[in-house]
Amino acid sequence: MRIVSLAGGIGGARFLRGLRAAAPDADITVIGNTGDDITLFGLRVCPDLDTVMYTLGGGINEEQGWGRDKESHAVKEELAAYGVEPQWFGLGDRDFATHIVRTQMLDAGYPLSAVTEALCARWEPGVRLIPMSDDRTETHVVITDERGRRAVHFQEWWVRLRASLPAEQIILVGADEARPAPGVLQAIADADAVILPPSNPVVSIGTILQIKGIREALEGKTVVGVSPIVGGAPVRGMADACLTAIGVDTTAQAVLELYGSPLINGWLVAEEDAGVALDGVRVQARPLIMHDVESAAAIARAALDLAAEIARTPAGTPAAPAPEDAR
Amino acid sequence: MRIVSLAGGIGGARFLRGLRAAAPDADITVIGNTGDDITLFGLRVCPDLDTVMYTLGGGINEEQGWGRDKESHAVKEELAAYGVEPQWFGLGDRDFATHIVRTQMLDAGYPLSAVTEALCARWEPGVRLIPMSDDRTETHVVITDERGRRAVHFQEWWVRLRASLPAEQIILVGADEARPAPGVLQAIADADAVILPPSNPVVSIGTILQIKGIREALEGKTVVGVSPIVGGAPVRGMADACLTAIGVDTTAQAVLELYGSPLINGWLVAEEDAGVALDGVRVQARPLIMHDVESAAAIARAALDLAAEIARTPAGTPAAPAPEDAR
Repeated sequence: MRIVSLAGGIGGARFLRGLRAAAPDADITVIGNTGDDITLFGLRVCPDLDTVMYTLGGGINEEQGWGRDKESHAVKEELAAYGVEPQWFGLGDRDFATHIVRTQMLDAGYPLSAVTEALCARWEPGVRLIPMSDDRTETHVVITDERGRRAVHFQEWWVRLRASLPAEQIILVGADEARPAPGVLQAIADADAVILPPSNPVVSIGTILQIKGIREALEGKTVVGVSPIVGGAPVRGMADACLTAIGVDTTAQAVLELYGSPLINGWLVAEEDAGVALDGVRVQARPLIMHDVESAAAIARAALDLAAEIARTPAGTPAAPAPEDAR
Repeated sequence: MRIVSLAGGIGGARFLRGLRAAAPDADITVIGNTGDDITLFGLRVCPDLDTVMYTLGGGINEEQGWGRDKESHAVKEELAAYGVEPQWFGLGDRDFATHIVRTQMLDAGYPLSAVTEALCARWEPGVRLIPMSDDRTETHVVITDERGRRAVHFQEWWVRLRASLPAEQIILVGADEARPAPGVLQAIADADAVILPPSNPVVSIGTILQIKGIREALEGKTVVGVSPIVGGAPVRGMADACLTAIGVDTTAQAVLELYGSPLINGWLVAEEDAGVALDGVRVQARPLIMHDVESAAAIARAALDLAAEIARTPAGTPAAPAPEDAR
């Protein structure tokens, strides 16, 4: 079985660990968000790709959800002692090595997809991880602060400001020119099912969907999404701040409508959100909180089951008649 | 009083700490060797500049003589886990931060002299540290190994091979085009005394002397050297391997002749090397082993005293007659 998943950071990575456990024999391709990428101290940092790679590769800081386990911070402390900025982004020593290797390969001319593959050769994440694009894009957020109305890098809004100022606009710089990385469209074309994890629908999944051709490729497929909103609040993170920026309510219903049909065919919501509905989409209510790998696997299994059901009886097809009615 | 000193790594840095203690009110300019510089993992590493900066700035690993105190090695271990080379060069986490800041500034277009000044703003070494040149030069060593006769970077010969293969030739790549960094020639012109520490006469001091204009500028000045060879062996390091490469004996006499007159006016040798002599050079025998800052300061004081004596009665001038003979 061939599965494609789009993924952001922590929520996506934890879901993917469940997906891998739920479908151990499947061939899983993960298309990772690179809109959050940032160059710090001359080094290219890809937070979402790394979170997926470390989480699936067994090198993640479990408690934090991002960064390396058993991490130290000597480099960051020394950079601060030199007075260089920014000091608000948390880079650990072990993590620095990843960015150093990545930057050296990028500077040598390798595309990000090849670099990611090289890094994953060490981590063996058990999935094929491809960045959404080899072309550089960056999510910028328009805010108004004491310096006036201006665009800042997504990470500055998210990490430094903790989304405390309203996002007036969220822009993926470079989206118009960016092409899907090699393998992305083919993986989608070959997929038996596409799963959208409970990642941020605006700055993670929404960003990937802005890359030319990806949304169109998905529209012909069986696509099941897992709601990142449970009972009117994000399962984790600050997705509400991103949804507000684009005028979307923080509800499982509103996010479903944001993705919309024909992109999405199936939608998993939490039990308290039963009642969510959209034409052409099969909605199922399931426990959606990921406490551990087992609960994440249960959600993934539900998503795969729903995808299989949709594949057997596509939308528009009348549901298979019950044996009694078959006569 | 204005003093200029040329310096390599450990020996030079330890001597300079003594010089600063011996002449606390002097205006000291240090011209640092950059022939040992190397780019590792995309980062520009300047081992001699950093050894001087860390030693005088109180951040050196005292026992080792190079690198940072209280150092950890997470980045290096992770780079090795990714399988990237080289793994033979010892870069610590704290040290990495220096190279990251330097590389970022160089990439932004700042010359190495400006970068060095910026790094020293943190370390406050108490001297003005200038690289010999802002132009890139690199010392390469011709060796013959299982891959045949070839040139390797100095650090590969020195650190990886520990100078175990004979250096058939030592070449400063880029020497023909390199110009002295801003301030170098002016500092020499303004100096009351120039002191050559017991640094490596071939790949440290000898390298600096290859930069166009530096030797010529020195020849008009009072220049006192401290022999790096005591009793036929280097005080520390593997200077003998470098001297052999250029056909010079490992003796205080041979190194004096290598520097030669008119470059050098005064030469401090160890007591066991009394008898060393060269026309036009005043030679004095003194204890030359640097156990600590105090012993290094005593050597520096002897060098400054010899320089003052030479300045009062330049070579060629008959020694001032004793009072009895004055009648």
